[in-house]
Amino acid sequence: MTIRFGLLTFPGVQQLDLTGPYEVFASTEGAEVHLVWKDTAPIVSATKLVLQPTTTFEGCPQLDVICVPGGGGVNALLEDEAVLSFIRAQAAQARFVTSVCTGSLVLGAAGLLKGRRATTHWNAHDFLAHFGAIPTAGRIVQDGNLITAGGVTAGIDFGLAVVAALRGQEEAEMVQLSLEYAPAPPFHSGTPEDATAEVLARVKERLAGSRLAREAILARLASI
Amino acid sequence: MTIRFGLLTFPGVQQLDLTGPYEVFASTEGAEVHLVWKDTAPIVSATKLVLQPTTTFEGCPQLDVICVPGGGGVNALLEDEAVLSFIRAQAAQARFVTSVCTGSLVLGAAGLLKGRRATTHWNAHDFLAHFGAIPTAGRIVQDGNLITAGGVTAGIDFGLAVVAALRGQEEAEMVQLSLEYAPAPPFHSGTPEDATAEVLARVKERLAGSRLAREAILARLASI
Repeated sequence: MTIRFGLLTFPGVQQLDLTGPYEVFASTEGAEVHLVWKDTAPIVSATKLVLQPTTTFEGCPQLDVICVPGGGGVNALLEDEAVLSFIRAQAAQARFVTSVCTGSLVLGAAGLLKGRRATTHWNAHDFLAHFGAIPTAGRIVQDGNLITAGGVTAGIDFGLAVVAALRGQEEAEMVQLSLEYAPAPPFHSGTPEDATAEVLARVKERLAGSRLAREAILARLASI
Repeated sequence: MTIRFGLLTFPGVQQLDLTGPYEVFASTEGAEVHLVWKDTAPIVSATKLVLQPTTTFEGCPQLDVICVPGGGGVNALLEDEAVLSFIRAQAAQARFVTSVCTGSLVLGAAGLLKGRRATTHWNAHDFLAHFGAIPTAGRIVQDGNLITAGGVTAGIDFGLAVVAALRGQEEAEMVQLSLEYAPAPPFHSGTPEDATAEVLARVKERLAGSRLAREAILARLASI
């Protein structure tokens, strides 16, 4: 039986949040992967890679897995009722409701994190509480049919976990082997705990603009 | 000073071979990342994601790093003189000549692996000797200014190593932290040594078609 995966593909998405799990899903036997947006015009990702949505909200079939990746473009989605309605409608029937990185904030804005354990990029983790979520540490956090992943590259680990849940561990292991996923980072700086204080401070500085904009939106949402 | 990265973007590329290092390069301060092909019409990757080249062979500036990703589409490149000439011309002046996955076979066809240590996807490793390379185990193999990476996801580890070589380890660590690259695969099946015999056999079966086609091309090249 075909499994239908759908990834929200929006302007300003962090492309690796999307392309990591895409490759895992698309390498799975019997998978159909949709890139969903309001229209099918090409969109520009946060780091300028152009992506091509394959279907619209109206044209999208009911998905087995709805996945919202993150990125700077998430900010605009938090107050976009067309996006939030689409996600809510899909989530009502999907087997798994999922996110990578700051995509979980969009699930939160859609009201899907209330009272549920969730994670996100380390630099946005404190925002989860705004949506009534239970902020939870972890690269992949599952609470019932809600699966949220940490920042960017967590999407690959997450993708394999989802494939295992739907198709069994052996299929996930086959995908892992075909993608030669035996990671060996040359440095040890992938989390705030692992990074040096200097590296952490400088990355926070680089990400400060997007964070400030996000804080302003959350303050506005809270006051409604 | 700007660093110019260029990734060959061809029909049938394994998109994660490209999008992994893309995200690392594009997240580096002062980087310019080009997606290079014969023309700028959208191309369809091996798993159907559409990618948009940003420049042509003629329009491409001299690159500091030329990178050839792999994928099923590599087969057509092995006998494509326009592609091989472009790579040779760029390689002559580039600071680093690089590949991910089976992209190294294209470097080989361009004559750039002779007498040099190189790696590729585990399922293509024996092909390296056809090009006079010294097949070398390793997720990232460096021989002078030649850097080749293993299969698909090795491109992320590779990207960080290249950024460190060009911009210093601290910049690479900043990129690693911003991408939260602290991988935690849920299963232990990323190499032929780690996978079960059953998983290995079934993946080889899935990849057999592409391998057969590749063997036929190499036999043809050898007879010229």
